Amino acid sequence: MTANTDRRALLAGAAALGAATLAPATGLAKEEYADVKKALSAGHDAAVKRLQDWIKLPSIAAENLNYPAGAEYMKQLALDAGFQHAEIVPSSGKPGVFATLDAGAKKTLGLYFMYDVKQFVPSEWESPPLEGRILDRPGLGKVVMGRGAVNQKGPETTVLHALHAMKAAGRKLPVNLVLVCEGEEEIASPNFHEIVGAPQVAAALKKSVGVIIPFASQSPSTGAVTINLGAKGALELEMVVSGEKWGRGPKGDIHSSQKARVDSPPWRLVAALSSLVSPDGNTVVIDGIPEMVRPLTARERELIAMTAAKTSEADSKAQLGVSRWIDDMTWEQSLERLAAVPTVNIQGLIAGYTGPGGKTVLPGKATAKIELRLVPNMTKDDTVRKLRAHLDKRGFNDVEVNVSGGYGPTETAEDAALTKAQIAAYKRFGAATTLYPRLAGSWPGVIFTGPPLNLPAGQFGLGYGNGAHAPNEIFLIESANPTKVAGMDEAALGFVDFLYQVAAIG
Amino acid sequence: MTANTDRRALLAGAAALGAATLAPATGLAKEEYADVKKALSAGHDAAVKRLQDWIKLPSIAAENLNYPAGAEYMKQLALDAGFQHAEIVPSSGKPGVFATLDAGAKKTLGLYFMYDVKQFVPSEWESPPLEGRILDRPGLGKVVMGRGAVNQKGPETTVLHALHAMKAAGRKLPVNLVLVCEGEEEIASPNFHEIVGAPQVAAALKKSVGVIIPFASQSPSTGAVTINLGAKGALELEMVVSGEKWGRGPKGDIHSSQKARVDSPPWRLVAALSSLVSPDGNTVVIDGIPEMVRPLTARERELIAMTAAKTSEADSKAQLGVSRWIDDMTWEQSLERLAAVPTVNIQGLIAGYTGPGGKTVLPGKATAKIELRLVPNMTKDDTVRKLRAHLDKRGFNDVEVNVSGGYGPTETAEDAALTKAQIAAYKRFGAATTLYPRLAGSWPGVIFTGPPLNLPAGQFGLGYGNGAHAPNEIFLIESANPTKVAGMDEAALGFVDFLYQVAAIG
Repeated sequence: MTANTDRRALLAGAAALGAATLAPATGLAKEEYADVKKALSAGHDAAVKRLQDWIKLPSIAAENLNYPAGAEYMKQLALDAGFQHAEIVPSSGKPGVFATLDAGAKKTLGLYFMYDVKQFVPSEWESPPLEGRILDRPGLGKVVMGRGAVNQKGPETTVLHALHAMKAAGRKLPVNLVLVCEGEEEIASPNFHEIVGAPQVAAALKKSVGVIIPFASQSPSTGAVTINLGAKGALELEMVVSGEKWGRGPKGDIHSSQKARVDSPPWRLVAALSSLVSPDGNTVVIDGIPEMVRPLTARERELIAMTAAKTSEADSKAQLGVSRWIDDMTWEQSLERLAAVPTVNIQGLIAGYTGPGGKTVLPGKATAKIELRLVPNMTKDDTVRKLRAHLDKRGFNDVEVNVSGGYGPTETAEDAALTKAQIAAYKRFGAATTLYPRLAGSWPGVIFTGPPLNLPAGQFGLGYGNGAHAPNEIFLIESANPTKVAGMDEAALGFVDFLYQVAAIG
Repeated sequence: MTANTDRRALLAGAAALGAATLAPATGLAKEEYADVKKALSAGHDAAVKRLQDWIKLPSIAAENLNYPAGAEYMKQLALDAGFQHAEIVPSSGKPGVFATLDAGAKKTLGLYFMYDVKQFVPSEWESPPLEGRILDRPGLGKVVMGRGAVNQKGPETTVLHALHAMKAAGRKLPVNLVLVCEGEEEIASPNFHEIVGAPQVAAALKKSVGVIIPFASQSPSTGAVTINLGAKGALELEMVVSGEKWGRGPKGDIHSSQKARVDSPPWRLVAALSSLVSPDGNTVVIDGIPEMVRPLTARERELIAMTAAKTSEADSKAQLGVSRWIDDMTWEQSLERLAAVPTVNIQGLIAGYTGPGGKTVLPGKATAKIELRLVPNMTKDDTVRKLRAHLDKRGFNDVEVNVSGGYGPTETAEDAALTKAQIAAYKRFGAATTLYPRLAGSWPGVIFTGPPLNLPAGQFGLGYGNGAHAPNEIFLIESANPTKVAGMDEAALGFVDFLYQVAAIG
């Protein structure tokens, strides 16, 4: 069977079963997945082991850990899953991976993977973060705990699981795949544009209908999914004040009694930081940034109101450990801000003595780890320029702004075929969906949605995980309630269904 | 020989030699110290070893390291040096030591010692900080390098060296001694008042003519000494903002994209800090503090002008690694500020992620390690109250102010006998002296100069050292130019001479 025949047969099958049981009436009838389901069950243990093994090899760009080993491992994962071609793509930073799976299909789908993970502090974990131990979570099911479990190796392994199962079931994929993967997502993808811009990668992606990053999208209580029509951009940087660069204050730490006559780098950092936001830290006041913010459209407000109505404020607050939103705003207002406003966040502050007790030093240096979230119509480079100009205008010419990575916001239209395919696949699983204008978190989708590719791009994936960037990161592999919240096999089946939706829609 | 007879004989001797060779005409003739000099030479190696051995036992209150071992060691050092009585004095914190040496003399001198030292980071040192290795410093001489070398074990060992030598020479001291020692000086002496307030300690000190902390006071280039007529007070504290206490922001670190709707403890800390000082960080604007500052007197200004004329701005800047004073002020202005103004210094900043690269967290907590320097008429408790009220008035009620220690400023009159004895001893060595109103650094002299004791108190000591609170701390033990800058033996002889000056003056 060629893919086209296959697809036609499946569409016929779907039509035969009738739209009532298959809303919307695209893709395969659920019953027609029996062989895939069987293959997924048979491959379950291997898939879990694949995830555990991958977790054992953490690539962390900020610590220059496991490069290029992580890229080589990713390349092999792709080849094992059926990609006919896979190659390492060098960049100015860490290498990426490019792979293609030609199924002889009419359409091609792009996949965006990351093989790097966030830093971790083993002592903060209830189970060793590189072991990928399987734990029982009452009411939820069996989870794998480890760094990268949900961000992003679990969802990515789910996709690989689906591809292995399709192969085992002797099926051709309904779409061709182009995989592009980077190893610097967690440092804000400073070189990903080089990888995507490589001629063979750009040419392959140009043929695709859009790009998907695998995701674990479900609510653990309801199974509901929020589909984000975009994501904020991110800009990560350090602001550094040093006596060395300033020409004032001490070059190194000196006795603190000298503060009476010697300028202080930490105080200068405090002043420079203060100039960036309103006194409550909640409104960005960098010159020219407020004017760049595109107000929410009426449709975006409508989507937010629907999201507010369908989602639980209490759950969200409990999960975050937060008892009040800023300015004691309502749930809907908090969701508006989450989608609409740019932010300047202090990730970390470091100056002088940081050990127990005190130490009477006037520090020679002070550093703030800062990240900005960007909304349309902000861009990375323009934001960097505006920040620099803002500081310079206030006499902070000496305050270093060391950008480590970043990219602008990404957007994909509500009526894009890729969005419709997502909605269809979620609905067929039985997951309620909500459209939300813009994820407050970031991913470098703009590399795909921006010029020159101008492709739709979004997240897709059933299943559940938690603890990204935190201790005790988990990914659900066996759901206690698999018809509501997908375990790894159900999520892989959902991905297969999604591929058929992509093949069928638009 | 009783001490009185001794003193009369010595005064007679001094008179016989004539004032021209002995300016001022008090104490012994220099020639009359031959036996002490001999004993100091004989005891030199033992004294250096005493210092090295002491350096090997660092008591660090902030790290709860070597307690009560440090106090027991100090007690034994006192007994070995001839104190007939020595005891451990408990406090709410670390124990102190109280010792008395009754020489049957008419006058009693108080000695203030500290047995604790500042924290250290071995990797920052050119020689292991607990080895007390002897190194050659071209042009300067032989030094002992180690934590506590100059702050304050070297100068204290010099005093002990003098007492050992007097004993070896078969001499009685010209004054009785009362030693009071603490183990929390480096955390701003939070419990020293309890030790001094112990009935037996207070009673013994009450009989004294004043209290001296051993010091290495000489300029390494000229041998000149600045006599400080007082010292600023110090107040050490942490300012902490946490989501837990605030009731806003996250309880722990959460994903930074939430900044759009969740308050930030680091931003709140930045705002609270900003309220304490002028935008340049150089003027304290805490409500009610500026009004407490007693302006410099005409005599104090005069002393500062004389200090400015006699001391080298270039040397000072080079030693500090500073190229400009705040506001590009003159040397004399910098010395005025050093003496006259209170300060708020940021010793350290800690929040969120402090490792390499970035980490997209919104931190649940932010801490600033702060220390204030107090000038007359500020007091510790009043300053704490004013800081709290200042923060509360601006709505920062939740910002924790955790005071770890502190004390007010100390002052001793220019015409106190203790001051005159210092001047006399320095002059007899040949060291030029400058009077300076107030050391910008701090020591808990106010425990002696304030009520109920109301004693004169100051620093005394020839010799040189450097690197207090910094890596590569040194103390000069064998001077390359011993008639200009005292090595350990010369400084010990200077201390003996000082004791005779105390006995003779006032």
